[in-house]
Amino acid sequence: MTAPGFAINDDDAAWAAELFEKVAAMSPDSAGVSRPALSEVETRVLDFLDQRASEAGLETWRDPAQNSVYARPGQRDAVRYILTGSHVDSVPQGGNFDGLAGVVASLLCLRAAEREGLSLPMPVHAIAMRAEESAWFGPCYIASKMLTGSLEDDEAASLHKGDGRALGDHLADLGIPVDKLRAKVPLAELSRIAAYLELHIEQGPLLAERDLPAAAVSGIRGNLRFRNIIVTGEPGHSGAVPRAYRRDPVMAMADLLHRLDESWSTIVQTGGDLVLTSGMLGTDPERHALSRIPDSVSFSLDIRSQDSQTLSGMQGLLDTEIEDIARRRKVSFDTGPASRNAPALMDPGMIAGLKTAMDALGMEPLAMPSGGGHDAAVFANAGIPAGMVFVRNRNGSHNPDEAMEIEDLVAGARIMLQYLMTPQG
Amino acid sequence: MTAPGFAINDDDAAWAAELFEKVAAMSPDSAGVSRPALSEVETRVLDFLDQRASEAGLETWRDPAQNSVYARPGQRDAVRYILTGSHVDSVPQGGNFDGLAGVVASLLCLRAAEREGLSLPMPVHAIAMRAEESAWFGPCYIASKMLTGSLEDDEAASLHKGDGRALGDHLADLGIPVDKLRAKVPLAELSRIAAYLELHIEQGPLLAERDLPAAAVSGIRGNLRFRNIIVTGEPGHSGAVPRAYRRDPVMAMADLLHRLDESWSTIVQTGGDLVLTSGMLGTDPERHALSRIPDSVSFSLDIRSQDSQTLSGMQGLLDTEIEDIARRRKVSFDTGPASRNAPALMDPGMIAGLKTAMDALGMEPLAMPSGGGHDAAVFANAGIPAGMVFVRNRNGSHNPDEAMEIEDLVAGARIMLQYLMTPQG
Repeated sequence: MTAPGFAINDDDAAWAAELFEKVAAMSPDSAGVSRPALSEVETRVLDFLDQRASEAGLETWRDPAQNSVYARPGQRDAVRYILTGSHVDSVPQGGNFDGLAGVVASLLCLRAAEREGLSLPMPVHAIAMRAEESAWFGPCYIASKMLTGSLEDDEAASLHKGDGRALGDHLADLGIPVDKLRAKVPLAELSRIAAYLELHIEQGPLLAERDLPAAAVSGIRGNLRFRNIIVTGEPGHSGAVPRAYRRDPVMAMADLLHRLDESWSTIVQTGGDLVLTSGMLGTDPERHALSRIPDSVSFSLDIRSQDSQTLSGMQGLLDTEIEDIARRRKVSFDTGPASRNAPALMDPGMIAGLKTAMDALGMEPLAMPSGGGHDAAVFANAGIPAGMVFVRNRNGSHNPDEAMEIEDLVAGARIMLQYLMTPQG
Repeated sequence: MTAPGFAINDDDAAWAAELFEKVAAMSPDSAGVSRPALSEVETRVLDFLDQRASEAGLETWRDPAQNSVYARPGQRDAVRYILTGSHVDSVPQGGNFDGLAGVVASLLCLRAAEREGLSLPMPVHAIAMRAEESAWFGPCYIASKMLTGSLEDDEAASLHKGDGRALGDHLADLGIPVDKLRAKVPLAELSRIAAYLELHIEQGPLLAERDLPAAAVSGIRGNLRFRNIIVTGEPGHSGAVPRAYRRDPVMAMADLLHRLDESWSTIVQTGGDLVLTSGMLGTDPERHALSRIPDSVSFSLDIRSQDSQTLSGMQGLLDTEIEDIARRRKVSFDTGPASRNAPALMDPGMIAGLKTAMDALGMEPLAMPSGGGHDAAVFANAGIPAGMVFVRNRNGSHNPDEAMEIEDLVAGARIMLQYLMTPQG
């Protein structure tokens, strides 16, 4: 007997390839694609997906957080369902697959099930979410936080990188009930969601190195993030102020990054799990000059670990190093608000179920950790069993060179469909 | 008998104060003043100074490098003369006194001499030069390099920070004979220049700390500069790429700045003369994101010393550290062209003459090193005896908070006039 996951066929693969191509064409940039969170581009992508889902015989609607949701006819009002999907926004000049792959894979499952008349043990809603990427406002997982009632007030107050308007105002513009967000009322009926299942491209090199098309995910790193740490010193002539009189913010920043880098090395060498990145930094282009000690410099920090204690420890270390450097170098640090997202383990039953599905499809049943954060972490931390499937992808994500093969996506979608076709304990 | 330097009086002080005020009003910015090199603002400032110089009874003209020159009537064609002046351009959002003070002081000397009918032993030409600051094109001392035939071809090819056009094109627009520059033909008749004398605000804190209004300068630090060092690594997801797989350009830059900072500390502690600044740095705002390892970062370096060997040593150290970091961190460094300006000693006879003048005026005859570079270094390195007077100034230069008192400027101008009134060896 052929495993039911194989219902996803070559026609589905071609359909998916065209979806990727069309959506990329809707979100061009000078390099890669840009689908800003909560933008008109994002809405047009959802409209396009709605149209294709309708053509595939699916029912489509927008949920109260203005995400697009898809189900087989008659299953919109199911008392319990498995929610499966991902997000459609991208980082600036990012790749086309981060997020979108999981939405397309979910549609492939529903399209094949509807076409083949497959009977699923539990109804499935596929979701195309907005605003997962932190690049636009600072906070990440905005849609899933709204659905689970966990968007914090300071996150809603954060300002858009481009237009400077608050996230809350952007949400209100879309007709999202911001009063409920403030009251921490989940915009989804969480008791109806039996599980959350998300496919995503791997952002690291492991699957490519191991020559595997897909894997289950064991857990998701949490993060501790500072969008804009500002170091303020004292401006001066680059040639005339002796070392002893300087209050140089750039050297203070370099000192801090160097110390964090040394600690990171130690933690990894002693078996800890940690990654640390300053992705954005700079002096003020309107004020800086080759021959002037700048008055300030700003930089971001993104610190991640699968271990909550490691994240707490890094917060303490950061505080200590900043205090020491500020005193020694006579500068001040303003870290601004920290954004914290807890690490999340995937549901053991779902990991087992996904491995069983991979086995049934003749694939190696690997489970691996996720370095990147995902909406699945938000659902998991809201008490909903969550699972993830990673698909092989070269060159990492969040860049124009993301390289996922459609056949690997199909492999991942087959794992999902196989899992969804199998009655779970 | 009253020292002749005291011919500069309260009326001259008021005249100077009004000049500063009017020129500041011609070059406003959101903070401080901006007088871009070779800009229309710069030309309008020269026009205004020409008008005031004419009103003071002086002859005015433009030299072949399009600087304004002033002399007492009948002295334009003097076979030999002392050239005295400074520059009128400023860094972006800089202070009003850096450069302009020396031009105004030179005009004060000629104005007082003409008004009082003083007989100077050697004719004096005052000069208001353009384009001393490196902030606009990269190379500094552009006017004095043109006058001495020492503007390098790669300097003339450097691009304007704002409009991206080459320096040579900007010069041609002003009617400056760029073919002569290429042939290294001095635009001034150097054999006619008996000496170059420049007053400038001090850019460091020494005179303010010692409570002195002015001093002679003993020598000028040379510099080794890199306008835009680019570190290139590999972009990636901030959470998903393990430390061992990273090629992070930001951590490589922080590593380099940290190492240079450590070496700087050692050199200063062992009695060496060095200052080191990275005034401009940043990831690409169009591409960077909180959650992405950037593909590149760029930064400037300005390294200065009074000692040529220290500068050469720093070049060697930089090369070694870059090679080591590039290998360890799997990134590449493109330093771009280095700009070098040799240290310059002031003429011992002029230092002695300026000290004698200070003594005659009842001032403490101090001579101190200059941390900042000045056009005087170019004339000195062209074999013309050069001298400088520093005037007390709080808060450093190259920033909106430069604070020079007019009475201190008058003290400095009196030193110059006293010197110019005294027959030299």
